[in-house]
Amino acid sequence: MESGPPGGSGPAEPGPRLRGWRGADAAASASSLSRFGAEAGCRAPAVAAVLPAGGCGERMGVPTPKQFCPILERPLISYTLQALERVSWIKDIVVAVTRENMETMKGIIQRYQHKRISLVEAGVTRHRSIFNGLKVLAEDQPNCRLSKPEVVIIHDAVRPFVEEDVLLKVVTAAQEHGASGAIRPLVSTVISPSADSCLDHSLERARHRASEMPQAFLFDVIYEAYQQCSDYDLEFGTECLHLALKYSHIKAKLVEGSPDLWKVTYKRDLYAAESIIKERISQQVCIIMDTKEDEEHVGRCLEEMLKTELNHVKVISGQDLQQIILEQCYSFVCVNVMTSDFEETQRLLNMLEESNLSILYPVVVISEEQKLRESLRQGATIIAALIKERNSGLIGQLLVA
Amino acid sequence: MESGPPGGSGPAEPGPRLRGWRGADAAASASSLSRFGAEAGCRAPAVAAVLPAGGCGERMGVPTPKQFCPILERPLISYTLQALERVSWIKDIVVAVTRENMETMKGIIQRYQHKRISLVEAGVTRHRSIFNGLKVLAEDQPNCRLSKPEVVIIHDAVRPFVEEDVLLKVVTAAQEHGASGAIRPLVSTVISPSADSCLDHSLERARHRASEMPQAFLFDVIYEAYQQCSDYDLEFGTECLHLALKYSHIKAKLVEGSPDLWKVTYKRDLYAAESIIKERISQQVCIIMDTKEDEEHVGRCLEEMLKTELNHVKVISGQDLQQIILEQCYSFVCVNVMTSDFEETQRLLNMLEESNLSILYPVVVISEEQKLRESLRQGATIIAALIKERNSGLIGQLLVA
Repeated sequence: MESGPPGGSGPAEPGPRLRGWRGADAAASASSLSRFGAEAGCRAPAVAAVLPAGGCGERMGVPTPKQFCPILERPLISYTLQALERVSWIKDIVVAVTRENMETMKGIIQRYQHKRISLVEAGVTRHRSIFNGLKVLAEDQPNCRLSKPEVVIIHDAVRPFVEEDVLLKVVTAAQEHGASGAIRPLVSTVISPSADSCLDHSLERARHRASEMPQAFLFDVIYEAYQQCSDYDLEFGTECLHLALKYSHIKAKLVEGSPDLWKVTYKRDLYAAESIIKERISQQVCIIMDTKEDEEHVGRCLEEMLKTELNHVKVISGQDLQQIILEQCYSFVCVNVMTSDFEETQRLLNMLEESNLSILYPVVVISEEQKLRESLRQGATIIAALIKERNSGLIGQLLVA
Repeated sequence: MESGPPGGSGPAEPGPRLRGWRGADAAASASSLSRFGAEAGCRAPAVAAVLPAGGCGERMGVPTPKQFCPILERPLISYTLQALERVSWIKDIVVAVTRENMETMKGIIQRYQHKRISLVEAGVTRHRSIFNGLKVLAEDQPNCRLSKPEVVIIHDAVRPFVEEDVLLKVVTAAQEHGASGAIRPLVSTVISPSADSCLDHSLERARHRASEMPQAFLFDVIYEAYQQCSDYDLEFGTECLHLALKYSHIKAKLVEGSPDLWKVTYKRDLYAAESIIKERISQQVCIIMDTKEDEEHVGRCLEEMLKTELNHVKVISGQDLQQIILEQCYSFVCVNVMTSDFEETQRLLNMLEESNLSILYPVVVISEEQKLRESLRQGATIIAALIKERNSGLIGQLLVA
């Protein structure tokens, strides 16, 4: 199977994850941009993305369409948009949502400060929604801030863990071949039933692949395919690569994707997504102390203990709150040594409230120094457990270790 | 698509879930057995099950084979065995494990008190493992407690949420058709790549299905197929229904399964399984009180508050501990009103330790009555959060509401 982009000498660097460190993201994007120019030997194309998000989520078994289902109180689609926004070379992101969800979507964009997003109305099927997205990119009008891209990425709103790595691969392959899509090995054997629900034949698993997202196309290739395709295609089709083959005679290049590309389809997938997000995003901890130097060893001991269980721990004194917020750390442990009136902690909570950051809810643990010193290990265990689980029921509770 | 069993007048009753109430399970099994006789109009067949469990879990990305990965500290395969054991009409369960995991498997059977299990050595492929399982069922020897079944179920060790409902459907269909298997709609479009990793063609999603487990066969049908099939089939094949078709000329009846039948394949599936198990098993609560009647309202208030968040809450006084254990409740809240020396609680903990039940670890929350009464709502929130998450890091911690 194909792996790296054409001309690339090795696997692409893993893209930024849901880590929230702006500095790291910017560096990763810059290095990827240079890949277009220097390494891959081709110029960086103008790239836009279209996300059909008009589905009603019937397979989920919940009334909310799955793309709007909350994960740690933030809608699923917001994570997907964040993943695309982190890729600086995607100039525009067009999201197709139904009329009834238009205001919801506008609210999400505002609440989580999404950038480069344009909204269009979804069609009644996935293909019609994508077509609507392509149309606004095709119309190169003076009053429209959108302009026609050379390459368009099509992605699902319900695949939040897409990495820059695979986006770069499909875009590069689309530049060369006209169309490209991510694939994965089949998990189950695929069979063809007869009319009476009996086995007609089974397909050899090794000869087939699951077609996943993202896919990328030369804009003209996929737009022409959509313009030519039949109503039947628009109503019952599911596969953009198929349209490109049938109407534009382009054989898409297939790119092996990672397991992370899976599509949130069932309720169990929401559970899985939540666990993955918890694992990736929530384990940075700032320990905030209102401490004098001679008391500081308490914080340092706690930091050492937490480091064995969590993947990023730093100790900051109370004066640096503004700096912490800029760094988008989501978990805070306040150790109050000097006072027990929680004044400093309240100040932190107020700042977090007012900052209007695209934050997950912060975890605040307040520990009285006297008891913490007695059973520091116990305190560290509780703190680590709280941070790993991010159980909203324990937010704001006074837990004494 | 086919739904109910032949001759059945309506959908089967949902099978018992991971609820742990023996009474309910026994009732469900009895009613299903009667379906064979009375409703379905055919006699109850002798049924055995074969579970291939020799996989190495390479797709999981963890060193432990996925069937042995712990979920809430209990191996995945133990949940699957529990699901099959609950179905009283499955007489024998043959599990194929590799030689190096044989002792691990024996330990699991002992630890979780699994019944009706026989172990055989796994082959190097899935088909060879199943064949080994069938062989011990076929050999009707005087010294072997196994006897040849009329119908054999083949299931995966890594599909823990199988329900009696679908097992009954495939067994009934196998009786009539010779072979039967559960199917699900495809989540992704299936494509066929060309030799140069380009799209050759895509399959129409509506005309294909994913073949899942369980499957069931007349024993002679599938055993004959395995005896006749080629080494190539045994090495590279994945589909038992295909073997039955190719060598026994039996067109399997396909039965629509529920989304619960999915196969734990990737790490994300372990996360999903853990969340589902937490949701199903962990929300029964016993509130144990060492209380006099005039203090009882504290417990009642707590019970009412918890009922809004958890799906099964009951108040039991401390004297009924033995009864509680028999009922296999996994979550305990001890409210100590009379004393603060935790003597009663210690007694409960000792009994749980000694009972050697197939328990998940119990959650014990100790609250001092005086404070609990002051902030009962806060206590209920903490308790509900702990029980929903079952965070092992918080076990044994003294949390004061």
